[in-house]
Amino acid sequence: MANFYIALLHYPVYNKNGQVVTTSVTNLDVHDIARAARTYGVKRFYIVTPVITQQQLVGKILRHWQQGYGANYNSSRREAFDIADVKSTLDEVISDIAKEVHSLRLVATGASLTGKLLTFGGLRTQFRERDDSYLLMFGTGWGMAQELLARADFLLESIKGVADYNHLSVRSAVSVVLDRLCGREADKR
Amino acid sequence: MANFYIALLHYPVYNKNGQVVTTSVTNLDVHDIARAARTYGVKRFYIVTPVITQQQLVGKILRHWQQGYGANYNSSRREAFDIADVKSTLDEVISDIAKEVHSLRLVATGASLTGKLLTFGGLRTQFRERDDSYLLMFGTGWGMAQELLARADFLLESIKGVADYNHLSVRSAVSVVLDRLCGREADKR
Repeated sequence: MANFYIALLHYPVYNKNGQVVTTSVTNLDVHDIARAARTYGVKRFYIVTPVITQQQLVGKILRHWQQGYGANYNSSRREAFDIADVKSTLDEVISDIAKEVHSLRLVATGASLTGKLLTFGGLRTQFRERDDSYLLMFGTGWGMAQELLARADFLLESIKGVADYNHLSVRSAVSVVLDRLCGREADKR
Repeated sequence: MANFYIALLHYPVYNKNGQVVTTSVTNLDVHDIARAARTYGVKRFYIVTPVITQQQLVGKILRHWQQGYGANYNSSRREAFDIADVKSTLDEVISDIAKEVHSLRLVATGASLTGKLLTFGGLRTQFRERDDSYLLMFGTGWGMAQELLARADFLLESIKGVADYNHLSVRSAVSVVLDRLCGREADKR
């Protein structure tokens, strides 16, 4: 089965008014997404921000749980944070992954992507049949800016609930995407 | 299709050492779970705590987004919070639901439930075929105490990722359970 990676991108993303901004890192994003990533077998979870002080803050959180007091206090949290890392840009993420894999495909996610979309079923099939690795890109704020979407090899279909309302937090969206791609159920094994 | 409801329970739940405690309400639980509940068509999302000051705090958060400044600032957040409510106990939740439905089945969720478990597939089938309503119970802390589990009509199978590690946040767990029960994909319509 293919390897996959996650990037949580804080720049360039849109704000409520469609302007390109840098969002702040949210502590609970780091916790929830690390735990979900570890549960679903993600190889590495990258928190991406160009802001040096934010990188330092994230580094401090990661070290607390990887090696500090938190690592002893809660070993399952340590296991989750072991796969987390912080980078400045998407290019840094891609360079880091390139050290261990030869072919990486970028998959953009979002609540309102348009155009030719890859379905969850299509991505599951690719996972099973190809030897590539995949980077799932998640935007913060009101979603990834166009220049990030333009980098993607695929745009993934949006998560649909029962009607048109679709305003999941990025924490929920990551969990659902990972479960759709790699979750297991008793009746489906 | 059946109606369903969610209860997020803060007492009685276990702490890390297996003692029965009351956990504090987490603001982001309220936000994330309200948004997921609204996305997946949940009729009502109950935040359950016996602590009066916590009930007051949750009430203040709910009103901010239901009617206050937040309702104008972010209308999709208002729609999510419109289905949220706060109660003291599970019995209060059940009484409230009994005003609108005649038959309610309680489904307990958890990461390490044992015994006879209802599968996700089994619950989906019940949803489709029966006219009952369902209350999905989610524990905070290290999970619901035995006296809450004993109230349930069904214990739902745990969420499985790729291996044995399973330490999702309650925010992630609610999102994944709702998606497994009611999510839609292009290839599966």
